[in-house]
Amino acid sequence: MSSNILLIPGPIVISENVQAALGTPSLSHTGPEFAAIFCSTLQKTRKLFKAGETAQPVLLAGSGTLGWDVAASNLIIPGERVLVLSTGYFSDSFAECFQTYGAKVDKLTAPLGGQVPVSDVREALANGHYKMISITHVDTSTAVLNDVRSICRVVKEVSPETLITVDCVCSVGCEKLEFDAWGIDYALTASQKAIGCAPGLSISMLSERAVGVALNREAQSSFFASLKRWIPIMQSYEKGSAAYFATPAVQLINALDVAIGEVLKPGLDARIAKHRDISNWFKSKVTEELGLKLVSANERVSAHGLTAIYVKNPPEVISALKKSGIVIAGGIHKDIKGEYIRVGHMGESACNDSLQHIQKCYDALKSLNL
Amino acid sequence: MSSNILLIPGPIVISENVQAALGTPSLSHTGPEFAAIFCSTLQKTRKLFKAGETAQPVLLAGSGTLGWDVAASNLIIPGERVLVLSTGYFSDSFAECFQTYGAKVDKLTAPLGGQVPVSDVREALANGHYKMISITHVDTSTAVLNDVRSICRVVKEVSPETLITVDCVCSVGCEKLEFDAWGIDYALTASQKAIGCAPGLSISMLSERAVGVALNREAQSSFFASLKRWIPIMQSYEKGSAAYFATPAVQLINALDVAIGEVLKPGLDARIAKHRDISNWFKSKVTEELGLKLVSANERVSAHGLTAIYVKNPPEVISALKKSGIVIAGGIHKDIKGEYIRVGHMGESACNDSLQHIQKCYDALKSLNL
Repeated sequence: MSSNILLIPGPIVISENVQAALGTPSLSHTGPEFAAIFCSTLQKTRKLFKAGETAQPVLLAGSGTLGWDVAASNLIIPGERVLVLSTGYFSDSFAECFQTYGAKVDKLTAPLGGQVPVSDVREALANGHYKMISITHVDTSTAVLNDVRSICRVVKEVSPETLITVDCVCSVGCEKLEFDAWGIDYALTASQKAIGCAPGLSISMLSERAVGVALNREAQSSFFASLKRWIPIMQSYEKGSAAYFATPAVQLINALDVAIGEVLKPGLDARIAKHRDISNWFKSKVTEELGLKLVSANERVSAHGLTAIYVKNPPEVISALKKSGIVIAGGIHKDIKGEYIRVGHMGESACNDSLQHIQKCYDALKSLNL
Repeated sequence: MSSNILLIPGPIVISENVQAALGTPSLSHTGPEFAAIFCSTLQKTRKLFKAGETAQPVLLAGSGTLGWDVAASNLIIPGERVLVLSTGYFSDSFAECFQTYGAKVDKLTAPLGGQVPVSDVREALANGHYKMISITHVDTSTAVLNDVRSICRVVKEVSPETLITVDCVCSVGCEKLEFDAWGIDYALTASQKAIGCAPGLSISMLSERAVGVALNREAQSSFFASLKRWIPIMQSYEKGSAAYFATPAVQLINALDVAIGEVLKPGLDARIAKHRDISNWFKSKVTEELGLKLVSANERVSAHGLTAIYVKNPPEVISALKKSGIVIAGGIHKDIKGEYIRVGHMGESACNDSLQHIQKCYDALKSLNL
């Protein structure tokens, strides 16, 4: 397999211990050994989101995208209104998912590289009767970081009955996130980003209020993604007792348990600060020393797990870095697709100084005389 | 991790090579290295189902259950009629999944341990105007094997426009299955059964006709499970070129590629014959020498990847075997839940003679003087 340095915005480089936990024999999904692992993983997942005992973690075999189906098919009844704050490709796709399950979607679209002004959110909420607002914490297509805390405050003030959903795919483990304190109702992420596990798991957190909505729902809009079916299973596993609806990905859960353990070990806040430092270092080097421009408009709206950089010939840059053994990604925002590159700096690559991954990436970019 | 011999009807013991392929670094899901692996896996998947170039394989991150959502949300429009042949827990759950997506379901229920008579199927089809018939090849709750070929013949004769869906979760790799020759339209399985991979992948095969239904469908009933979104992605990867809708589970796909390779290596027919031999040996020993009764009524309707055996005190038997390092499963059919055990004999445990797994399980059962 590859010995490249993988610096796309997920999947990312996984640690040796996570890799070892993945390459293990299968366990019985209903046996006590796996039940203990699943219980541990669920409990660590709470800590990762800064969620307390009233919140409900849900871990499913699937891509991160499955978390969108979980939100749209369990928390919204067809015909109900959703306000989507759009900052790029991923917000737009999430909006399509809501529509697939019958939601009426209004979109507030941010300027390219920026956030939706909080005043616009306030105004829309005041007139909207929205069942849900959806925010993409970090839109991986533009590396724009949204101010989830401020938006949550406005929602609580103007439309407290509106459920708050946050797509945290590229933020859990590398951005400040306070599920309970900010009053989030549904947050979703994936295993292969800053958490540092392999891809293949959808990771969600529900507030007590969201659990109520899901459990009290009569008609189900999905089967495999049905929370009414999964919540009792998760609760049983968290009590240490196996239960069955569909077979969990046992090796991936085992690897996730190790990966979250590594995120929590230095303290979650320290881990997030480390991502901020590496991100600030890389962004300042790229802008100040190489004179390149970022897609994210300014420091305040810039994500810390990846950097999106305008370059003249993205395929050439990507290919040149590949020759140095560094894998980065191209752009995917529809308006500027062929104009920028994306460099991920999450997990091991950002936090294990001995690897020097981000330094090496910067050196390789510098050598291209862009 | 566990050194137990895992003989539940999936997840099963995986080979050392599959385990090694799982415990590998993450790859870029859009890079050429992973595209080549995914292409290889898709091509091998065709061979596994005995499906030709007009059939379409689909590999998704998810539990096997996700394949039910794929069928129900892509091939059936709300209000259309589905005939479900029910042989136990899994057929009944699949029927619930169809109903979740708005299908009108009629069920033909087999006697416990037996099949639905083909004459009943013929009669129902003649009067039914069914968009789809669904058959569970092996119902893992009862170890009953259905005669898919005969049912397919009747469908083609009486109601050729009816789509044929087969749940092959516990049959692909251990039972005779001819996707093209029998005229199946949609077959689904999971990675952790006789294919011998870890759990976490939903594996499907569509006929040209089913692809047409999925692609011509206007309103989508699911997002992550939408074939209209996934088919172009699979076709692109099979041409060796990456494409994106949601991030595939790269390590699981890599492990699946190795696992299917191992299934195909001795020749698929030889592999299936091996399962039949081991199954026949185990079943005859258990019935003739231990005098125990099987849940499956007779040899003709008995699956070859697992055996369901009536015993007086299932929890005691399971616990006694666990002490000998052998993990088997309890019953899950609603009518006889506490009356039987289930022993899986698939993949490595059935085909690698040097392991002696099934012999050891039989010896352990014998020592209990049941």
